Amino acid sequence: MRDIYHDELDAIGSLVISMARSVAVAMGRATSALLDANLQLAEEVLGADASVDALRNEIEDRCFQVIATQSPVATDLRVVISTIHLTADFERMGDLAHHVAKIARLRYPEHAVPDEVRDVLSQMGQVAQSLITKVAEVIDGRDVELAQAVEAEDDSMDALRRKLFTIVLSDHWQHGTEAAIDVTLLGRYYERYADHAVAVARHITFIVTGERAL
Amino acid sequence: MRDIYHDELDAIGSLVISMARSVAVAMGRATSALLDANLQLAEEVLGADASVDALRNEIEDRCFQVIATQSPVATDLRVVISTIHLTADFERMGDLAHHVAKIARLRYPEHAVPDEVRDVLSQMGQVAQSLITKVAEVIDGRDVELAQAVEAEDDSMDALRRKLFTIVLSDHWQHGTEAAIDVTLLGRYYERYADHAVAVARHITFIVTGERAL
Repeated sequence: MRDIYHDELDAIGSLVISMARSVAVAMGRATSALLDANLQLAEEVLGADASVDALRNEIEDRCFQVIATQSPVATDLRVVISTIHLTADFERMGDLAHHVAKIARLRYPEHAVPDEVRDVLSQMGQVAQSLITKVAEVIDGRDVELAQAVEAEDDSMDALRRKLFTIVLSDHWQHGTEAAIDVTLLGRYYERYADHAVAVARHITFIVTGERAL
Repeated sequence: MRDIYHDELDAIGSLVISMARSVAVAMGRATSALLDANLQLAEEVLGADASVDALRNEIEDRCFQVIATQSPVATDLRVVISTIHLTADFERMGDLAHHVAKIARLRYPEHAVPDEVRDVLSQMGQVAQSLITKVAEVIDGRDVELAQAVEAEDDSMDALRRKLFTIVLSDHWQHGTEAAIDVTLLGRYYERYADHAVAVARHITFIVTGERAL
């Protein structure tokens, strides 16, 4: 039979999953806002960021309560501490979606990104979605094997970022420095989003195995 | 009289301060490597990053031990949890110094940054040093007032970053897209370094007041 303590850990776990969903939605919308110069979607992302931050604070407060009142040890302690860590990663992923949406808004009604990088950025958006979806599954199932798949998929994000830079640095780039800077920062935001997804996957591996990734 | 438990918290606190010193040295050297095209300094930064990461793991493990064996509550619990958070910030600050050093190494023996942005980047390096020095004092003295000064100084980093972008985006920029991308990323790295300094200052404020910054 479950006790109140483990019910609370489960409840916190559900909040973590809904935080994952929120940052998935945020980056999905931010990518659409960017690729389609959709101002309304950009505004939705910018407006939703505060609720991600609030969710983080709630989760952290409840983790504090658990530590203070239940003195968790071993796996439970790793769950609570790792949860505090990974909500920080999720909050940052929400910030990065926010940054992407801000560039879309800044350039509206123009498209922020020239046609020739559109395809790569679209793929980066898809990898971001795939990563965060996997990460939610890793959390839900404490799936260490899938956590390794997240790391592998991060490599494809890095490859896309290199491809993006190759295009911007080619002699054929005709869009000037401003667009180059936008694209550089966008590449960085997607890359960092993926890095945080990897960090979350590693926190789950740590929960399960007690071993930190090197 | 102090007990073993509080001695251990003090010992962890000393490790945190030495972590702050390490990331201060790292960014100081990375900035010199960048401004003077000094390969040896760049290599030193790149070689030292692993010891920052190791320090973080040691601090986190000891925090775990304290939670598991001492069941800290109230301020002590906030100290332990905030320490876990802020070592993550310091680790990231070390990574950012690493990124700056990597750009210096990549362009060596050339200077990575054109003369006209040298002054702004030098100032960003100085603000970074000032911030991390203040942050170490904030931690050491649990100084909430100084924590607010850290936030104010972060504003000057943001202003420098805007200045940097203005130069890169001006019609007078003659250094092409590659240098523009380097400078954009460098601006971002210093800005993020400052953001993490602010995050650390906020963790200390949270320890003292129990209130989170909005």
